Amino acid sequence: MALRERGLVRDVCVWSPSASTRAACKSAPWCNEVQESPEAACEGAHLVVLCGPVDRIPPLLEKIAPVCEDGCLVTDVGSTKERICASAAQIFGADHPATFVGSHPMAGSEKSGLAHADPDLFCGKTCILTPTENVSESAFEWVKMLWESLEMRTVRCSPVEHDRIVGRVSHLPHIVAAALAATLADGSSLERESSGAGLRDTTRIAAGDPALWESILMENRNAVRKALEQFEAELQSFRSALDSNGEDLQLFLRKAGDYRLSLDEKATET
Amino acid sequence: MALRERGLVRDVCVWSPSASTRAACKSAPWCNEVQESPEAACEGAHLVVLCGPVDRIPPLLEKIAPVCEDGCLVTDVGSTKERICASAAQIFGADHPATFVGSHPMAGSEKSGLAHADPDLFCGKTCILTPTENVSESAFEWVKMLWESLEMRTVRCSPVEHDRIVGRVSHLPHIVAAALAATLADGSSLERESSGAGLRDTTRIAAGDPALWESILMENRNAVRKALEQFEAELQSFRSALDSNGEDLQLFLRKAGDYRLSLDEKATET
Repeated sequence: MALRERGLVRDVCVWSPSASTRAACKSAPWCNEVQESPEAACEGAHLVVLCGPVDRIPPLLEKIAPVCEDGCLVTDVGSTKERICASAAQIFGADHPATFVGSHPMAGSEKSGLAHADPDLFCGKTCILTPTENVSESAFEWVKMLWESLEMRTVRCSPVEHDRIVGRVSHLPHIVAAALAATLADGSSLERESSGAGLRDTTRIAAGDPALWESILMENRNAVRKALEQFEAELQSFRSALDSNGEDLQLFLRKAGDYRLSLDEKATET
Repeated sequence: MALRERGLVRDVCVWSPSASTRAACKSAPWCNEVQESPEAACEGAHLVVLCGPVDRIPPLLEKIAPVCEDGCLVTDVGSTKERICASAAQIFGADHPATFVGSHPMAGSEKSGLAHADPDLFCGKTCILTPTENVSESAFEWVKMLWESLEMRTVRCSPVEHDRIVGRVSHLPHIVAAALAATLADGSSLERESSGAGLRDTTRIAAGDPALWESILMENRNAVRKALEQFEAELQSFRSALDSNGEDLQLFLRKAGDYRLSLDEKATET
């Protein structure tokens, strides 16, 4: 939808495992063609974008590899990269005519499904690209250009480094927001009425699709466990500060606040 | 500012411990008078609203009590209520001509200071009122009307119940947001560039004034410790689910998501 709106692609061909999504796509103005299998959808394509739960992407790569032709660029939008890029490096190796470059456009929302599709979802957001060693610079540059043409900033790192980073800046916030919401789930109606915008913002991402997030967190569980340990150590620092004196507590809050303000500066720069 | 904009008060008289804030108020269009002491500011007032760090409010109550006249209503906007209302009940007891009713308008923002004053800050938000036993129903109704005239919803509970509730729905989110920000504070610039809107929302409130929050968290440390224990138990449930299987993890995420969605329904109702 975003690419068609900007006139950057001619034909969009869709496959989805869901029959109702396929039916809905048929009448979408940005969609030219709907196919009944991933192989049929990818035949003759110049660009393939795989969007789905992270554990479904490696089997999809296996399926479409035989029909991806010379010069075809394959990418994905999965939120974890190590296992996806490792299986892609095997399937789309040096002897395969098509190339895979892993992408992670960090532009989700807590809403999912075709009804919430938004061609401006990507504007001003960051896309992490994780090319493996077998990927040529020109293939990397094409995929980079693809996301930048949707007004994204791009950064590049290895799949392992990607998973460590998103374990901290994306998955950890999700877990923390979910645990906070779970803590309050048994609260009284008076308590619910007393909650304000702070709680709503802090827990917004906890409303994300549970099935999608299950696959992300399971896939990245090692990096997630490590990030969680670091977070729990900070909670322990907070508790010690609370038990000792106000000065330590202010130092803790100031460190946190300074970091948060630096994120706003980053957002203003872009 | 909010009361004057709506034509609900005639004269606004300000005192602040900060000379620069007093000077700035002098030229504010909603301010009629600036005084050099809290006692001078409260003399002859019909309504007194104390706004300041929660540990400063009891000493202020002591100071202004001798000048508060018959029929004067005193309230505050402190984020904790037990200690403030206990000292107010002593100072403004049955033999005092003025009445104190504790308020907690839950309408802060991470921005502080006169420059961020906003007459519509309160619209659509919740104000918790915590009258003690010595407060008459008519005094309570006046203070309730005050906040409702600023378009707030009001709820009523005891000071102790208030502190338990805000320990969970306001202070706990603050701690969690701050601990998350503190965890990431030593991250690489690549990590910082890779962060998205989810992290920004989840940590927004961590940018709140450290001195103000120190006094709130210290004052309410018992309720805060208890809320933190409940949160840590949920983190432990998450970890167990991550170690066992995806089904448990989805259940955990679904419980959290359902609660979060219920907050949006609440917001839509108002």
